[in-house]
Amino acid sequence: MPDHIVSSYDTDLEDLRRSISEMGGIAEKMMTDASNALVRRDVPLAQAVIAADRRLDTLQREIEERAILLIARRQPMAIDLRETVSAIRVSNDLERIGDLAKNVAKRVVAIAEQIQPQKIVIGVQHMSDLVQEQLKDVLDAYGSRDTKAALDVWERDDAIDALYNSLFRELLTYMMEDPRNISFCTHLLFCAKNIERIGDHTTNIAETIDYLVTGVNSLAESDRPKNDASNYATVDLPLPGASA
Amino acid sequence: MPDHIVSSYDTDLEDLRRSISEMGGIAEKMMTDASNALVRRDVPLAQAVIAADRRLDTLQREIEERAILLIARRQPMAIDLRETVSAIRVSNDLERIGDLAKNVAKRVVAIAEQIQPQKIVIGVQHMSDLVQEQLKDVLDAYGSRDTKAALDVWERDDAIDALYNSLFRELLTYMMEDPRNISFCTHLLFCAKNIERIGDHTTNIAETIDYLVTGVNSLAESDRPKNDASNYATVDLPLPGASA
Repeated sequence: MPDHIVSSYDTDLEDLRRSISEMGGIAEKMMTDASNALVRRDVPLAQAVIAADRRLDTLQREIEERAILLIARRQPMAIDLRETVSAIRVSNDLERIGDLAKNVAKRVVAIAEQIQPQKIVIGVQHMSDLVQEQLKDVLDAYGSRDTKAALDVWERDDAIDALYNSLFRELLTYMMEDPRNISFCTHLLFCAKNIERIGDHTTNIAETIDYLVTGVNSLAESDRPKNDASNYATVDLPLPGASA
Repeated sequence: MPDHIVSSYDTDLEDLRRSISEMGGIAEKMMTDASNALVRRDVPLAQAVIAADRRLDTLQREIEERAILLIARRQPMAIDLRETVSAIRVSNDLERIGDLAKNVAKRVVAIAEQIQPQKIVIGVQHMSDLVQEQLKDVLDAYGSRDTKAALDVWERDDAIDALYNSLFRELLTYMMEDPRNISFCTHLLFCAKNIERIGDHTTNIAETIDYLVTGVNSLAESDRPKNDASNYATVDLPLPGASA
């Protein structure tokens, strides 16, 4: 017996896949543009990122509505049901990734005029490069239903969290060294946090791929290789003469 | 013609409602406890918040699975379909609220030993009180399908965003005044941001109530009374002698 027999169902699924793919493309571009805007202090590029988010919101709502109607009308089972549920989950994650990239872009607008020691921005850029790679890889894995590639993304989140932790401490140190860095570094801290959370959403998508292919939530229910200790991080005051 | 005729469907819907209600209770308690833990530097209470989050994650996954199966098996239409879709949406928001409260609790553990000027914490507490009220009101509105109460919550988000903006500037100022405040104030900034985002999720729930009752996404598609300018906020350096 074939997995499903209604051929217009295939068309519906194909439409969903195409919309997810469009969302993936927009989210990837928003993330790359937000990061470039930050490094280059490019306010028009940042504004383009902010504007792009609306399309992502619209697509997410459309995908959810179409997927739910498809479930109600065609009562898919097994792989077809998982395909539809996965479309809802992945579109949610991509919509959130867009929100986070938009938030980075808004902060670029805020700090464009401020002193920006380039070495501080480079740490954020490095983390952003890794997360962009995660996003690209997980979207490819979703397109090809590749659980091995998905697992690889899932495991690499650990490295991003570790990088975020060291960046968090570094930014706090810059703030303590010179109060003129505080406003700028605070925005950078939030940018870094947003980028780290985009990384979390790529691991969500990896978990969805695993569920889509295997039918069980094994990755989602196992403990993530979570290494985000920054919630607990503090930095000792490095001021000269204040070490007593 | 009644809205639906299968009576075991009523039982399924009733089960979903009960699970949402359980999630709402847990999320409210986590939010209140996280806030109290922050004000009182109560590490054991913060750890209880962190532990409570697991139950919320489990419930969210169960609700999503049951709702999807219910849609596939019973093909609900109109209000019954909206009721089921709303359960998925609200459970997602409550799960995110739990994550955000857990993050506040983790930061309480981090800063418990640090100097904490009480007047700084009080601003965060005030915002937290407002958001707790929003959460309580929106959960009541969801229980009673009260669109008027939901709209009221939705409109009040504006005030919370305004409060967050002023708090953001205030915390930046404290950091500039005394570098010893930086580590503590950074964590407080993230706490405040988390609490503001819990407020955003209460407006999401308000939008879902509107969709559930009216069948259209009118609130969600209108422009939010968004007043979160903190993404754009910077603070001038108040150091004496540095004003040139």
